[in-house]
Amino acid sequence: MHSIIYLAPILGIVGLIVMAIKSAWVSKQDAGDANMQELAGYIAKGAMAFLKAEWKVLGIFVVFAGALLAYSGTIHEVNGKPIHSSWIISIAFVIGAVFSATAGYIGMKVATKANVRTTQAARTSLKQALKVSFTGGTVMGLGVAGLAVLGLGGLFIVFLNIFSDLGADTVKTAIEVLTGFSLGAESIALFARVGGGIYTKAADVGADLVGKVEAGIPEDDVRNPATIADNVGDNVGDVAGMGADLFGSYVATILATMVLGQEITVQDNFGGMSPILLPMVICGLGILFSIVGTWFVRIKDEKSSVQNALNLGNWSSIILTVIASYFVVNFMLPENLSLRNVEFTKMDVFFAIVVGSVVGAIMSIVTEYYTAMGKAPVLSIIRQSATGHATNIIGGLAVGMKSTVIPIITLAAGIMASYYFAGLYGVAIAAAGMMATTAMQLAIDAFGPIADNAGGIAEMSQLPPEVRERTDNLDAVGNTTAATGKGFAIASAALTSLALFAAFVGIAMPENQHIDIYKANVLAGLFIGGMIPFIFSALCIQAVGKAAMDMVEEVRRQFREIPGIMEYKAKPEYEKCVAISTKASIREMMMPGAIALITPLIVGFIFGPEVLGGLLAGVTVSGVLMGIFQSNAGGAWDNAKKSFEKGVEINGEMFYKKSEPHKASVTGDTVGDPFKDTSGPSMNILIKLMSIVSLVIAPYISGIGSTATEKECCMKDGAKTEMGCCDKDGAHAEMSGCDMDKCADMTKEECAAMCDKNGCSAEQREKCMKMYDKDGKYIGPVASDTNTDSTAN
Amino acid sequence: MHSIIYLAPILGIVGLIVMAIKSAWVSKQDAGDANMQELAGYIAKGAMAFLKAEWKVLGIFVVFAGALLAYSGTIHEVNGKPIHSSWIISIAFVIGAVFSATAGYIGMKVATKANVRTTQAARTSLKQALKVSFTGGTVMGLGVAGLAVLGLGGLFIVFLNIFSDLGADTVKTAIEVLTGFSLGAESIALFARVGGGIYTKAADVGADLVGKVEAGIPEDDVRNPATIADNVGDNVGDVAGMGADLFGSYVATILATMVLGQEITVQDNFGGMSPILLPMVICGLGILFSIVGTWFVRIKDEKSSVQNALNLGNWSSIILTVIASYFVVNFMLPENLSLRNVEFTKMDVFFAIVVGSVVGAIMSIVTEYYTAMGKAPVLSIIRQSATGHATNIIGGLAVGMKSTVIPIITLAAGIMASYYFAGLYGVAIAAAGMMATTAMQLAIDAFGPIADNAGGIAEMSQLPPEVRERTDNLDAVGNTTAATGKGFAIASAALTSLALFAAFVGIAMPENQHIDIYKANVLAGLFIGGMIPFIFSALCIQAVGKAAMDMVEEVRRQFREIPGIMEYKAKPEYEKCVAISTKASIREMMMPGAIALITPLIVGFIFGPEVLGGLLAGVTVSGVLMGIFQSNAGGAWDNAKKSFEKGVEINGEMFYKKSEPHKASVTGDTVGDPFKDTSGPSMNILIKLMSIVSLVIAPYISGIGSTATEKECCMKDGAKTEMGCCDKDGAHAEMSGCDMDKCADMTKEECAAMCDKNGCSAEQREKCMKMYDKDGKYIGPVASDTNTDSTAN
Repeated sequence: MHSIIYLAPILGIVGLIVMAIKSAWVSKQDAGDANMQELAGYIAKGAMAFLKAEWKVLGIFVVFAGALLAYSGTIHEVNGKPIHSSWIISIAFVIGAVFSATAGYIGMKVATKANVRTTQAARTSLKQALKVSFTGGTVMGLGVAGLAVLGLGGLFIVFLNIFSDLGADTVKTAIEVLTGFSLGAESIALFARVGGGIYTKAADVGADLVGKVEAGIPEDDVRNPATIADNVGDNVGDVAGMGADLFGSYVATILATMVLGQEITVQDNFGGMSPILLPMVICGLGILFSIVGTWFVRIKDEKSSVQNALNLGNWSSIILTVIASYFVVNFMLPENLSLRNVEFTKMDVFFAIVVGSVVGAIMSIVTEYYTAMGKAPVLSIIRQSATGHATNIIGGLAVGMKSTVIPIITLAAGIMASYYFAGLYGVAIAAAGMMATTAMQLAIDAFGPIADNAGGIAEMSQLPPEVRERTDNLDAVGNTTAATGKGFAIASAALTSLALFAAFVGIAMPENQHIDIYKANVLAGLFIGGMIPFIFSALCIQAVGKAAMDMVEEVRRQFREIPGIMEYKAKPEYEKCVAISTKASIREMMMPGAIALITPLIVGFIFGPEVLGGLLAGVTVSGVLMGIFQSNAGGAWDNAKKSFEKGVEINGEMFYKKSEPHKASVTGDTVGDPFKDTSGPSMNILIKLMSIVSLVIAPYISGIGSTATEKECCMKDGAKTEMGCCDKDGAHAEMSGCDMDKCADMTKEECAAMCDKNGCSAEQREKCMKMYDKDGKYIGPVASDTNTDSTAN
Repeated sequence: MHSIIYLAPILGIVGLIVMAIKSAWVSKQDAGDANMQELAGYIAKGAMAFLKAEWKVLGIFVVFAGALLAYSGTIHEVNGKPIHSSWIISIAFVIGAVFSATAGYIGMKVATKANVRTTQAARTSLKQALKVSFTGGTVMGLGVAGLAVLGLGGLFIVFLNIFSDLGADTVKTAIEVLTGFSLGAESIALFARVGGGIYTKAADVGADLVGKVEAGIPEDDVRNPATIADNVGDNVGDVAGMGADLFGSYVATILATMVLGQEITVQDNFGGMSPILLPMVICGLGILFSIVGTWFVRIKDEKSSVQNALNLGNWSSIILTVIASYFVVNFMLPENLSLRNVEFTKMDVFFAIVVGSVVGAIMSIVTEYYTAMGKAPVLSIIRQSATGHATNIIGGLAVGMKSTVIPIITLAAGIMASYYFAGLYGVAIAAAGMMATTAMQLAIDAFGPIADNAGGIAEMSQLPPEVRERTDNLDAVGNTTAATGKGFAIASAALTSLALFAAFVGIAMPENQHIDIYKANVLAGLFIGGMIPFIFSALCIQAVGKAAMDMVEEVRRQFREIPGIMEYKAKPEYEKCVAISTKASIREMMMPGAIALITPLIVGFIFGPEVLGGLLAGVTVSGVLMGIFQSNAGGAWDNAKKSFEKGVEINGEMFYKKSEPHKASVTGDTVGDPFKDTSGPSMNILIKLMSIVSLVIAPYISGIGSTATEKECCMKDGAKTEMGCCDKDGAHAEMSGCDMDKCADMTKEECAAMCDKNGCSAEQREKCMKMYDKDGKYIGPVASDTNTDSTAN
């Protein structure tokens, strides 16, 4: 093996080392006074309690699913052909799950440390507060990216060695088994995202409804029993959930590119593996340049723009990575490549990477426009708040729906452009290029909830107003980055799903077979697929509603039964609220998770790969749309509400907090909460997970439910006819063993028997017989038949 | 021509005659006192004012679009082949538009007569009130169905005669030109549905916001300046809009079945036209049995169930039509049929019809469940109203999303089952079977708004409470039938679109070519298509919001500037409110209409039929989902609000009108209004219209943007190879003129020139040359090549 294969895992280790250094730095910072530390302790304890409860459930799931995978991996043969799998896929699966959980753990751990240290830093300066909170985010980003590249790269090397005796099948089998790693990662991601999303919003909505609305105390007030749960939620949902989501995307994208790269036959200096190794190397370099990017995230003084600092860091890491990938592509790939009849050059591959970066950037910018304060969409919602709750809701829904237009056109153009440059490999490598700077993206994303938490701790500890002002400054920027991060996440999920989809088709479908939308069963699959994001969203939204109700009851009970809470004389029982959110989120994540995991299995094994392909296309399109719609509507409602805090002018009149329009905007914000933080972002994982499940089962379902008609079937593999490959009903029978070439080695009688066995038509049989002369000797097909008949050859 | 071809138009005329009789009967009924007549006069005048304003705009559109069609129809040849079209398609288009407008006119005219007469009848008995209102609805139903069958059947006969000199192409050309009729009908339907939907909800929301909420006067109060506009809206949206929608579905369904039927080659007693004529005959008989069904719609006394009477009428007409279609199928069709490689018997066709009826019934029942008072979904929204506006909204959105599951599974199963029985013809005839009793469906649908209007007039005329009680009884039933009618409409639109889609593929795509979802550009089309219902919905919802704002301003102005309105001393300026709704709806319907019409043109002519196919699949799936989601969420919110009027129990406490939970439910209802009456139902027409536009342009775009690779391309038409049909880049070159058969008539030099011209590969060229002996004489392909090579033959 060429030594470049070790580059990716090494870069992953570099990322993890830098992460450890930064993590130690965060731990060393001042954690503030005893009161602050106590509050932060509650949050850290609550977050860990959730993680442990989640892991207990997921542990059972991983064991069962792993066992199932191990069993399925032993079914080595289908129709007498080996199918490139092994029980070792279950090991990959378990490692993927553990790595994903570890990434979440690292992020949560550092976030619950960084929050109170950011509060303490904010007592001195904004500059220091940014440094602490962003370093906390960086730890998360590097942890996720480092573990992903190390895991994928390391396991790939291990599997290549394990399967080295398979000869030509070594690489294919290694990659096939590697899909287990991605499946494990994505499964954990689903539960982390959905469970975390339910947790955070149940606590948030519950805390607000009783605390802010009924009791009239401010947000993050220490007297509110749900306030700790609310702060835990930020960590559970926005840190751990988001981290698991991007970990899953990152892994799946690289893997899908590897699967497609493996289909490309090239002569290069890397044993023909350059298209397989390229995505790992680029992503590994992305980690390096993300580290470089973090150096630019710094401000001079209190008046510097935090947003600009983050933008500078983000853009420099993206641009450096793109430049580096130019050289990497040039160095690694041969001049010309070809995948499934599409030919392209190495420069085309580079252009596809550029396309991916541009798509990601546009998606982020558009998301920001639709959700930012002071821009037309949010202003329109503010105006419509003047006429009541209903018009506020209508306004937000309309904004969310409208916000799908440009992202979808961008995505469609991106798909076409990257395919134009480098075929399906182009689509996959575009996604990989976009995901290369995940470490940086995640650092920026995770910085938001840390700052939010820091503000909460400042409020609960009743620190001086300038501290809260500084954390609010960071938090406001965090809201914007959260929105753009969602745009990035959905774009990456969409491209990743397409890459996985392409990889799935390559494995599950015979060459030249199509997923034809105009076939009835494919259309049916498309409809069912399109429906799944709707039921998934409904379940998520309802789960938040139910859990929030439980929370409301508990908070009301505490206010009623524990005297002295409102006078700061008694402490609320924070842990009970934490327990409610934890229990509810674990309970409610089951059903949506089951839908995502089981639907592709049922459809795949009963109806086969073609219908499953329809299902995947439906779920991807509908999921991306619902994801954008819900995330942006929620973000816009949120910022419309926030605008009232500073005061807004509607028709010449100024409105502030507690005005009627503000109350209407609170309604919108509350509706938007589960939209933007639970169901919306869950769409990413839904579409990725269903694709990865399909990819894993692809070898087993190949051939099921094929409805190829006799004519199509017999034209498989170019014009080389395989007579009798279809049975009498036109269904797909054994594809091998009965083509005309075979008859050359048979007696006339044998050939006739073969025709009968395979249910050839009378016409076909007759033509077979004509290939023999009077003495029964094989003479080959008759020329006249060749020209006039459509089935005989 | 066999005389059965005259059956359909004759049955259409029968329907129109019965309609005229029933219409005369309605006119003869007592129209009440002068006050009632005056109010009814305002409504009738307002409704006609809208129709006239709409027609003015649509007239311009029809002239332009007709001219464009006439021009395009003259482009008779593509690649030297006649393409079955003619400028006469523009005549069909104009007639379709005029018929659709006439159907709307008839419905509106009788509805604005029947409303006040129902009020007057309600002064005597419920029985009489039902008779008048339902007869009004029947006039609408028969008018729509009669005009549709007469128009399609009559024009088909005319076109067969006009094109009789085309020989074998006569039928194909006649049907192709007939698509213009459907396009005309569907275009008018779009504007009627969208314009009407905006009108009715702008007036409704505007009237409620100022009247009920600000001024505290009841709904339909004569002092509210917007109340007449509100009642006009019921006629404009729910009568004319719904009528145009179903007229369009009805026509499109029959037409799509005819297009597919024309592809079936049969030996029958009807000149091979039985599969073409079957849908028209069944729909004609459906008119007869709808008339029979109306006889069952009668009640005994005040306590009889109106709903049961309607159900009895509906089910008897459906069952009679299914039974009749058994005999018709048996009589008309030959034993065995085949379409695009799928073989089926005539009984299979009958089973497909049964499938269609069952799908329609299930869709209606499920819709009723999700929107009916007292059922779990509405009760869940009521419960969530207790915790405020936001939870009410969340509850309604979740119910709407969940309500997509069973309808989509039903639809998917229906597609698979009807395809299983009779291929694509089965899908189309299933839709036709479902639509056969459109006259009855529409009678039941149109009865609702008539009863609603009757109640409004009773309220405005301050009639005794028992009158209002009777009209309220009818109105409540009308709300349920409106919901089930929407379920029926969306199911019919979905099946119709699929049938149109299949017909489109047949015309636009060469045989054996596929719309392969996993091609990048098809996927891009799928994404864009999926996004269109989102932007379309957003535009509709926003339009209602804007127009309602205008209405609110005007009503406030009148209350302010016209003294004595509140004391009944001065009359409000009703006509100003009518004018606002009219103007706004006409203005706001342009943009969504343009999207629906222009998108398929752009995509089709630039990217070709394959991408357009992806677009259609995307818009159909997404449109059906959004339609069900929005209609059902709106219906559920509406009935949750209505439940409070009778009082509801939440956690052991009773809540009534004006309670806080009731206010929250009003918010939901207001959000739901544009959902269920504007954007939701518009989805039907959106998906149908885009399909029909695609069908009309199908002949012109065939071949554009084909990316068939060389191998695929050269395998077109079975194994008969067309060498050189692809150029060097594997793109789709001229498909005709260079296949191997042609070389038989060429000299060696000509064949070589052909190979060069078409960019054949060196290998292909060489094989071509081998077909000639030393003297340049054609000897046919060499046998050995036949077996070993995949491109040479």
